[in-house]
Amino acid sequence: MNKVLITTVPFGKVNKKPIRILEENNISYLINPLNKKLTEDELVEMVSDFEIIIAGTETISDKVMSKATNLKLISRVGIGLDSVDLHSAKKRGVSVSYTPDAPAPAVSELTIGLALTLLRSVHVSNMDMHKGKWERFFGRRLSKITIGVIGVGRIGLGVLKHLRGFDCQEVLINDIDNKKNIPDGIQVRWTSKSEIYKKADIVTLHLPLTKKTKNLIKRSELLKMKKDAMIINTSRGGIINEHDLYNVMSNGHLSGAAIDVFDDEPYFGDLNKIKRCILTSHMGSMSEDCRSEMEIKATEEAVRFIKGLPLEGSVPNEEYEAQELD
Amino acid sequence: MNKVLITTVPFGKVNKKPIRILEENNISYLINPLNKKLTEDELVEMVSDFEIIIAGTETISDKVMSKATNLKLISRVGIGLDSVDLHSAKKRGVSVSYTPDAPAPAVSELTIGLALTLLRSVHVSNMDMHKGKWERFFGRRLSKITIGVIGVGRIGLGVLKHLRGFDCQEVLINDIDNKKNIPDGIQVRWTSKSEIYKKADIVTLHLPLTKKTKNLIKRSELLKMKKDAMIINTSRGGIINEHDLYNVMSNGHLSGAAIDVFDDEPYFGDLNKIKRCILTSHMGSMSEDCRSEMEIKATEEAVRFIKGLPLEGSVPNEEYEAQELD
Repeated sequence: MNKVLITTVPFGKVNKKPIRILEENNISYLINPLNKKLTEDELVEMVSDFEIIIAGTETISDKVMSKATNLKLISRVGIGLDSVDLHSAKKRGVSVSYTPDAPAPAVSELTIGLALTLLRSVHVSNMDMHKGKWERFFGRRLSKITIGVIGVGRIGLGVLKHLRGFDCQEVLINDIDNKKNIPDGIQVRWTSKSEIYKKADIVTLHLPLTKKTKNLIKRSELLKMKKDAMIINTSRGGIINEHDLYNVMSNGHLSGAAIDVFDDEPYFGDLNKIKRCILTSHMGSMSEDCRSEMEIKATEEAVRFIKGLPLEGSVPNEEYEAQELD
Repeated sequence: MNKVLITTVPFGKVNKKPIRILEENNISYLINPLNKKLTEDELVEMVSDFEIIIAGTETISDKVMSKATNLKLISRVGIGLDSVDLHSAKKRGVSVSYTPDAPAPAVSELTIGLALTLLRSVHVSNMDMHKGKWERFFGRRLSKITIGVIGVGRIGLGVLKHLRGFDCQEVLINDIDNKKNIPDGIQVRWTSKSEIYKKADIVTLHLPLTKKTKNLIKRSELLKMKKDAMIINTSRGGIINEHDLYNVMSNGHLSGAAIDVFDDEPYFGDLNKIKRCILTSHMGSMSEDCRSEMEIKATEEAVRFIKGLPLEGSVPNEEYEAQELD
């Protein structure tokens, strides 16, 4: 009988080390045979018997756990816990671990790339040129705009670090914890989300998905933004209301958006009709180094669990409390 | 009779100040009525009578100047002088000015955006997603690669400045003048172009187009590069041989390229068949602030010339000598 179900795919692709770790420890495993993000029902069908899930972002609900009668550990490859019902896990005695530091550098680099691409309409020109159309677009520079960073945890702080090389006109930041240490070499101003919506030329989101952040940015918030502002979401789908974003952009509001995360993934929704909206397929953490580290750390955690060693990536109490407050 | 022919388009579009300057000084002008980059023959047809050309990158050859019997000043909006026959200008007593500092910040920001986009396959995923296809690509981080910067003039130095926020693994640089002051806060290593081709994961070019740099990167240089390396050209078309680039990429060499400049512009060539090649329409300098500054400075130079005031942007002797050496 396999001990470990690996739901996240691809797994062991850029770096075979996590597979090697399992095999060297004689741990039997099954990699998600559907090779795609599982739905709740698919996971329900697959999950019985396994003691450990090395998990991606698929929903691990109370219903899933009720079928996973042998489950003892969920080891998340990555950071967000919106997909895991922590209350149910606790109730059922299932431990939950994650790798919160590993994905951050990849997400923060991608965010800067998306900002520069949006500002200069590289995505629009590239599509045009590949269709044989030559049109030159004016753009703006990172150094000349106001950027608003909502959420200054691991990823938001990484974004600020990269911005040190650009001498931005103004960097506005917001976080529920406004005592965070800001990296040297960058001037920031703490302010309300509302001021960020009104003043920023680019708003970038680096928040977990919780009941509080679900639909944080709806039509009303989008309409507070300047007509030529831009928005970036590399955090979680659902924080920006996708339908509202599509509607306001269809009507000419916002000069660009870059969306890497969606309510339902894979995403095939209406935003793909909007050329000035960059769409990527949840690739924030998918740099080879970060993805490898996430997979290795999550696998090592599974090995520690099986060997009865102390866990190193246990989800802290604050995460349980945050989800209970939801 | 109009005194000034403005060949570069768009002109006075993001900022009307250059038009206002001309009108306030009662200087009659004509803006390129074809509203596109002029060919040599089109310019020959258009140029007689004018005393001043406020010029883009169109060819101002001996043939053009031979028809421009009243021409006294070429005021280039931008930096490269590959388009102007400086020897002929000198012989005919035509002054030449340019605005070498104005475009640099826009080009160096675009370069970083292109690097990050290439590294994470944002351009490929964006095209896929807009066609309803979801595929996740692995990428690399700027912090984990070797970047090679060929040419560390105004733009190359700007690129180095931005890289300070990314802690690159290794930054290799090359310039004919290896005594340049490198900005604080970044570690670089001077080396040969040949080592850059062999070792860099990204090669980025920040060179003028001269007879020496024309076809600098042909098939042989491209094949020296690693199979999964990437190349960026935001300087001038012709420095990379376009046909060779197309051929090697068609055969699976290089994991990406970003090309903003072409032999003949507008470009409608074969590179548009290569999805992993980002194509943009010579937009390097086209940030609103830089483009405005370039247009304003070139226009102010024309006004100074007409008023008999000393010129401020006269092309220095080195540029004449460099072209004569060609």
